[in-house]
Amino acid sequence: MKRIWILLIATVLVNQAMAQLPDPGFTIDDRTAIIITDPQNDFLSPDGVTWGVVGKSVQENNTVDNIETLFKLGEKYDIPVFVSPHYYYPHDHQWKMEGALEVLMHNIGMFDRKDALSLEGFEGSGADWLAQYKKYIETENVVVTSPHKVYGPETNDLVLQLRKRGIDKVILGGMSANLCTEAHMRELAEQGFGVAVVKDATAAAILPDLNGYEAAVTNFRMIASHVYTTDELVSEFSKRSVNSNK
Amino acid sequence: MKRIWILLIATVLVNQAMAQLPDPGFTIDDRTAIIITDPQNDFLSPDGVTWGVVGKSVQENNTVDNIETLFKLGEKYDIPVFVSPHYYYPHDHQWKMEGALEVLMHNIGMFDRKDALSLEGFEGSGADWLAQYKKYIETENVVVTSPHKVYGPETNDLVLQLRKRGIDKVILGGMSANLCTEAHMRELAEQGFGVAVVKDATAAAILPDLNGYEAAVTNFRMIASHVYTTDELVSEFSKRSVNSNK
Amino acid sequence: MKRIWILLIATVLVNQAMAQLPDPGFTIDDRTAIIITDPQNDFLSPDGVTWGVVGKSVQENNTVDNIETLFKLGEKYDIPVFVSPHYYYPHDHQWKMEGALEVLMHNIGMFDRKDALSLEGFEGSGADWLAQYKKYIETENVVVTSPHKVYGPETNDLVLQLRKRGIDKVILGGMSANLCTEAHMRELAEQGFGVAVVKDATAAAILPDLNGYEAAVTNFRMIASHVYTTDELVSEFSKRSVNSNK
Amino acid sequence: MKRIWILLIATVLVNQAMAQLPDPGFTIDDRTAIIITDPQNDFLSPDGVTWGVVGKSVQENNTVDNIETLFKLGEKYDIPVFVSPHYYYPHDHQWKMEGALEVLMHNIGMFDRKDALSLEGFEGSGADWLAQYKKYIETENVVVTSPHKVYGPETNDLVLQLRKRGIDKVILGGMSANLCTEAHMRELAEQGFGVAVVKDATAAAILPDLNGYEAAVTNFRMIASHVYTTDELVSEFSKRSVNSNK
Repeated sequence: MKRIWILLIATVLVNQAMAQLPDPGFTIDDRTAIIITDPQNDFLSPDGVTWGVVGKSVQENNTVDNIETLFKLGEKYDIPVFVSPHYYYPHDHQWKMEGALEVLMHNIGMFDRKDALSLEGFEGSGADWLAQYKKYIETENVVVTSPHKVYGPETNDLVLQLRKRGIDKVILGGMSANLCTEAHMRELAEQGFGVAVVKDATAAAILPDLNGYEAAVTNFRMIASHVYTTDELVSEFSKRSVNSNK
Repeated sequence: MKRIWILLIATVLVNQAMAQLPDPGFTIDDRTAIIITDPQNDFLSPDGVTWGVVGKSVQENNTVDNIETLFKLGEKYDIPVFVSPHYYYPHDHQWKMEGALEVLMHNIGMFDRKDALSLEGFEGSGADWLAQYKKYIETENVVVTSPHKVYGPETNDLVLQLRKRGIDKVILGGMSANLCTEAHMRELAEQGFGVAVVKDATAAAILPDLNGYEAAVTNFRMIASHVYTTDELVSEFSKRSVNSNK
Repeated sequence: MKRIWILLIATVLVNQAMAQLPDPGFTIDDRTAIIITDPQNDFLSPDGVTWGVVGKSVQENNTVDNIETLFKLGEKYDIPVFVSPHYYYPHDHQWKMEGALEVLMHNIGMFDRKDALSLEGFEGSGADWLAQYKKYIETENVVVTSPHKVYGPETNDLVLQLRKRGIDKVILGGMSANLCTEAHMRELAEQGFGVAVVKDATAAAILPDLNGYEAAVTNFRMIASHVYTTDELVSEFSKRSVNSNK
Repeated sequence: MKRIWILLIATVLVNQAMAQLPDPGFTIDDRTAIIITDPQNDFLSPDGVTWGVVGKSVQENNTVDNIETLFKLGEKYDIPVFVSPHYYYPHDHQWKMEGALEVLMHNIGMFDRKDALSLEGFEGSGADWLAQYKKYIETENVVVTSPHKVYGPETNDLVLQLRKRGIDKVILGGMSANLCTEAHMRELAEQGFGVAVVKDATAAAILPDLNGYEAAVTNFRMIASHVYTTDELVSEFSKRSVNSNK
């Protein structure tokens, strides 16, 4: 009889604990970096191949400007920024096993480049950086990694580049919310990084019955150490001293 | 002027392509395995520590019986089954960086065991298998991997065990939908496996404003090669010849 | 007394087993690929920055021609060839933690490129392909992966590219024997591939008291499924039918 | 003509750089851990299945005592120690693709256990810890990871456990030198850790024409940030303050 009471009380306490999902929090320090996934035309430009399904989410979140804010914060506060791009080459179109969106991305020529060692046709293409980000990416503060090939950084050098600089906490934004951004959040968590996500510095495809953005926000909240809005992040950074060289 | 028309037509075609999200499909063959994540009391038993938040989803999906059906299909059709469990030891409670649900899981003692080399208190605990699955797991057809430690198989030997048996396609079920199950789907896709998910052989925490199950189903549909219901999978298997030894 | 005899006999049997190190063997089939690491000037050209320490080993093994034979075999017998290159960018020179040869490679400017998205100064540089391999690498039969960044394929997309084509066995050659080639052998074994190494289609730095080539051959023999010479491999391939399109 | 002189001088300088292989060095600090691979009977006990081929090297290096010194240093100076064990279960004997020593290890029953969830027959077996290490391993200062399954930590949770405690530099010893110990050195380097190796707190199989220990020492020197002897490491630690609680 006593055991039942204990069990009941324990259940109530656990349910309360679950309802109050903890927010472990995130402190920006000298071992922190900003990571931006896929800041490329095919996601963020009205000319990009996915604008028809992601454009509304990009506009509602003000994603293009919010990602630019992340680049600016990195520069202003001397926090390194890592860009993880997405490129496909002709040989990637020969894959025998693919998931739904992999098939789609190849069908619509998303992120296509001619060759890893060719820049022919690259400038201004869907695979190129959104024009307004180029002045940030082409500075010494930004490390551009090798391309990821499915959604996550398992297939590029992002984790190594972070570790080789002593980074162990990351602030994450970029495209698209439930695919590459979430895949980076998940893999970086598996690698033991502290991860915060900026939920309006990203956006996602919204299809009939499939709201990619809502799925991402749910998983950000459950998996990351903290979820920021861009405004909250700006406020958080303002407590730090400005990089005096810039 | 002509360019605008071409662009418009291209946009319409791409939007149609996106709206008709492809379904690459999945064929069960001799290189296919079934994978089950976390078939353990803390998720699936009314006595488990998460029942208060996952119980409703487990009951609505008929998850407990559907996972049992996966075990039965493996046995009947001679398809190997791999179980990827989730255990925490005292030293895991000393982690310095954690995400929201990692903190919660440790707070509520989820999946806790005394020691990797001790079985004291394990039998019937939240970390133990759901009782009705034991007769399947304790056969030669099932490989139990080392525990995963965050959500995905990056920290255990699942990928190696699959590859060492020549498996390159997997059918995935288990708990919980948007956490370990989805993390396994994503990592196995990054490793080049063909992945199908059984969407009612899983379930998830549903919190106020955070529907883990809906998030998972969205990502299953976008990322996997195919999404089955358990009934559809049973029907698909029925086209194969039965394992005559069993 | 009896136990001692059993123990003695067991020890003798085990020692015999060890002395007769098994050779599991390797069968070339439709799931087999050839992998070549670092076929670049800095290792293989007399103008390359490491020629002073690897040149002797390259010449003794006839490495340059033997690697060319691997490219030819792939083409003739329609076996896909994957090239895993080694590039360093300016930001790689900012790494805070490095091993001995990483420091050295950066000191001597090995494999340096200006930028992942720039080909300025690349043609004919130490990072470029050895000239005589270009005609093979620039065909559809060859997949060039992203660069590895330490020694192994953990930081590039080689494993994914192999798996996406259904490859599960690899024949390995390239430079240098105990560093990138061995690192590829080891990581591919950890990923569950069957691995054979061509021991004279590679070479290594030989320093006073540090014979990199001997170290590599020892580990090839102990870790790989089979070790070929180039001649043996040619003979093995000759049992297969020639690609009639080429 | 002038170009030839520049080339000649450059070559001489590079050769000198190579001949003087850099020693990047290693500083023990609060982010440093000790890692010990396979401190188990099958390698270190005269009753172990490999003693016939590794025993001589173990005795020459004084490996058993030197590994014990590593455990003692961790305790005395409050440096966490991580043990990465090697276990094989019955299902591991069904692997279809294996390298030479994997075949051998399975043939001789090395590291065999009955089941991950059974301790039947484990106590004192070849898979158990060497008896004299048990008092160290069974303390709170030591984290025992899941077993690695080939040679490296790719298949267990070592990297995560290190990162979750904020470790980014490791001191490595254990068995056997050119197999699991070297595989751990290499993978930890690929993961961006600073790695030092204790070259006489390890040993290796020495077969006719295959000296595993020499191979390992060559690769330790070329790949690690620093190579210590146990005496040098003791001396290095003596500069630190002693853990006052012990």
